[in-house]
Amino acid sequence: MRGMIVGRFQPFHNGHLNAIKYILNEVDDLIVIIAASQQSHQPDNPFTAGERYDMIHNTLVDELKDLTRVIVIPANDVKDNGLWVAHITRLVPKFDIVYTNNPLTEHLFSLTDKEVRRPPLYEREDYNAKGQKRMEGTSSKSSCGSD
Amino acid sequence: MRGMIVGRFQPFHNGHLNAIKYILNEVDDLIVIIAASQQSHQPDNPFTAGERYDMIHNTLVDELKDLTRVIVIPANDVKDNGLWVAHITRLVPKFDIVYTNNPLTEHLFSLTDKEVRRPPLYEREDYNAKGQKRMEGTSSKSSCGSD
Amino acid sequence: MRGMIVGRFQPFHNGHLNAIKYILNEVDDLIVIIAASQQSHQPDNPFTAGERYDMIHNTLVDELKDLTRVIVIPANDVKDNGLWVAHITRLVPKFDIVYTNNPLTEHLFSLTDKEVRRPPLYEREDYNAKGQKRMEGTSSKSSCGSD
Amino acid sequence: MRGMIVGRFQPFHNGHLNAIKYILNEVDDLIVIIAASQQSHQPDNPFTAGERYDMIHNTLVDELKDLTRVIVIPANDVKDNGLWVAHITRLVPKFDIVYTNNPLTEHLFSLTDKEVRRPPLYEREDYNAKGQKRMEGTSSKSSCGSD
Amino acid sequence: MRGMIVGRFQPFHNGHLNAIKYILNEVDDLIVIIAASQQSHQPDNPFTAGERYDMIHNTLVDELKDLTRVIVIPANDVKDNGLWVAHITRLVPKFDIVYTNNPLTEHLFSLTDKEVRRPPLYEREDYNAKGQKRMEGTSSKSSCGSD
Amino acid sequence: MRGMIVGRFQPFHNGHLNAIKYILNEVDDLIVIIAASQQSHQPDNPFTAGERYDMIHNTLVDELKDLTRVIVIPANDVKDNGLWVAHITRLVPKFDIVYTNNPLTEHLFSLTDKEVRRPPLYEREDYNAKGQKRMEGTSSKSSCGSD
Repeated sequence: MRGMIVGRFQPFHNGHLNAIKYILNEVDDLIVIIAASQQSHQPDNPFTAGERYDMIHNTLVDELKDLTRVIVIPANDVKDNGLWVAHITRLVPKFDIVYTNNPLTEHLFSLTDKEVRRPPLYEREDYNAKGQKRMEGTSSKSSCGSD
Repeated sequence: MRGMIVGRFQPFHNGHLNAIKYILNEVDDLIVIIAASQQSHQPDNPFTAGERYDMIHNTLVDELKDLTRVIVIPANDVKDNGLWVAHITRLVPKFDIVYTNNPLTEHLFSLTDKEVRRPPLYEREDYNAKGQKRMEGTSSKSSCGSD
Repeated sequence: MRGMIVGRFQPFHNGHLNAIKYILNEVDDLIVIIAASQQSHQPDNPFTAGERYDMIHNTLVDELKDLTRVIVIPANDVKDNGLWVAHITRLVPKFDIVYTNNPLTEHLFSLTDKEVRRPPLYEREDYNAKGQKRMEGTSSKSSCGSD
Repeated sequence: MRGMIVGRFQPFHNGHLNAIKYILNEVDDLIVIIAASQQSHQPDNPFTAGERYDMIHNTLVDELKDLTRVIVIPANDVKDNGLWVAHITRLVPKFDIVYTNNPLTEHLFSLTDKEVRRPPLYEREDYNAKGQKRMEGTSSKSSCGSD
Repeated sequence: MRGMIVGRFQPFHNGHLNAIKYILNEVDDLIVIIAASQQSHQPDNPFTAGERYDMIHNTLVDELKDLTRVIVIPANDVKDNGLWVAHITRLVPKFDIVYTNNPLTEHLFSLTDKEVRRPPLYEREDYNAKGQKRMEGTSSKSSCGSD
Repeated sequence: MRGMIVGRFQPFHNGHLNAIKYILNEVDDLIVIIAASQQSHQPDNPFTAGERYDMIHNTLVDELKDLTRVIVIPANDVKDNGLWVAHITRLVPKFDIVYTNNPLTEHLFSLTDKEVRRPPLYEREDYNAKGQKRMEGTSSKSSCGSD
């Protein structure tokens, strides 16, 4: 079984790392998609896809040692929610389970044959104080690529 | 030192694998870019980026065991040679040396501060008979993304 | 004489239907353009172009019986107001009169040889209470595709 | 049951008309997609989408009288075969059966839950002499939009 | 009266210069459009828009001294002949007369209120031997941007 | 030495003119880039690129008489900050010094071998009252094209 999780990772933080570790207990492999790869140098999207890739890759090398079970792939936005699932599906290797707390991503993949699960997430800013939270919150964002 | 090599990998073959192994003797890490990621289901581009990713990933897991030194990233064409270096540069982690036998890729990166080297390549079709060849030949292709 | 009316129809409602019936008293044929066809699954644009087409088509079959006088065509946004008239003009059959209450659409077509008229519209939400209103209001929207 | 057929219709001819009539015996409704809607003024694509729409619409009004069973929709190319099925699916109302003789269209829809059937077609140029032929031939075109 | 002439200028040569001088005898001002501005580093399109701009600008400074009557503007292709006239029209200052020997450009502007004239041109390669020729030949190119 | 300054010029005003005159005392030539060339008919972007070109060209002809030292070029947005420097660099002739008060433009060009300087600017609205101001203010806009 292969999982897939998507995020902008602006930046990648401990909450993301913990979600990845958690999911790796449930699946054989995990695809981590860096969404909105063409966005950078903006207040909400400061880092390029390459910089975000570096953060994730270096952390995973340190933490997991073995990178044979995690595939990291940047994906650009298509600005067209009706194409987004097809865009991701043909860009990355096959996967079985989508891990997301983004309602739109959840809805769009629920229309396919993929299983959708909600990952836990420790928010970076209140990691010590407040404990486990849902990844990406529950806001009804209208863009998949921006989750 | 980190190397970068680009190809369409339609499909990925032993020549590509040998080039990757050769380059890993020269650099610490290698970024393998799957070019023309949006092309598929065509006579010259049969496989999706995801299918090509799978071929490369599975082969590297089998052959290298350790994937901490190789980063595989799909990249779409930008159809604009004047933007291609910037497109790749902001999409992938930093690299120092470009491995290519494509004259256009060689030229475009020679205008930057990157070092450009030519990798050896065993062509798939005459792998046993003819021995070592240059990767991607020396044809003056006019598109970087199609090399 | 052929008329043309444009809307996003998110969703198609009785006000739209009444405007279409009204215009069909003035022209021989009417082209109904479903604007922003690539937008869907958003708070302000929940339906795909196909879903909107279905709503309009089914309603017109029920209400008009005869569909030989109404042509429904989805059109994507071009995000470039200076190209919008040309985009619509080459996408749909020839028309003589543009029906719109959107000031920008009105302005852009007033620069051409088309006649521009304002259609009446019963707003859905206050259909019973407030009577006839102008279609799309008079807000100075800055995008034709979003009217 | 609703059918779907796709063509560039450069131009629309009797072979296309006969195929549409034939299919209407098999399905309740038929969606006719004018592919490559953004192509015009080229040797192989002389007509705009609007001109092609007009040809088809006028012929169907003359021949069928009743247009409640045929839906004509222009669709632009996406230049990305891996997105084409999703592009068409979200642009037009739901359909059950794809009628095509284009091997790529056939292949791409065979990966979905749609039924794929081959329509008969009388080729325009040898309509009298050679009798019934397959629509669009059997050439392995590499672009769906160009069939 | 303001004229407009379009070319790719790969490279700019004496034939182009002579055409410009000739046209400046007929009009008050001339807009020179560098077409296909996004094409470069290709066998048929070796130079970037910036390099082509430099060639033209430097030659005109040398030859005309006064640049108040000539406006040089790069324009990217829109890959959509039905939008091309609108693309150029909103990108550059107003003009009255289009100078072109490209049949498609001639046709597309003949549908507008612009006057279309054919400029003379001395071909670079046989400038001395064969005398005056038509600019851009009379080949029926299917792309405006590539003339 | 050649300078480059970028603005949307919606509209071009005396502050812009004064900045251009000031810079022409520091450099041999100046490239003036009309950014967001594809934006028009919007509240914040009322004028087409062509209309803005006309304003600037006519003013410079009146004020400078000699146009051999100023090059005006419209440039469309690329909606991708990581490509913006490459987009501008290959579109216009070579330049040495970037004049900007936009922090993002300043940052992006500081990563290249260009020198970045801040131009003075008299704001139009308080030209008489408040004296010299910085061009484009100091707001941290997240889009280069919108400065």
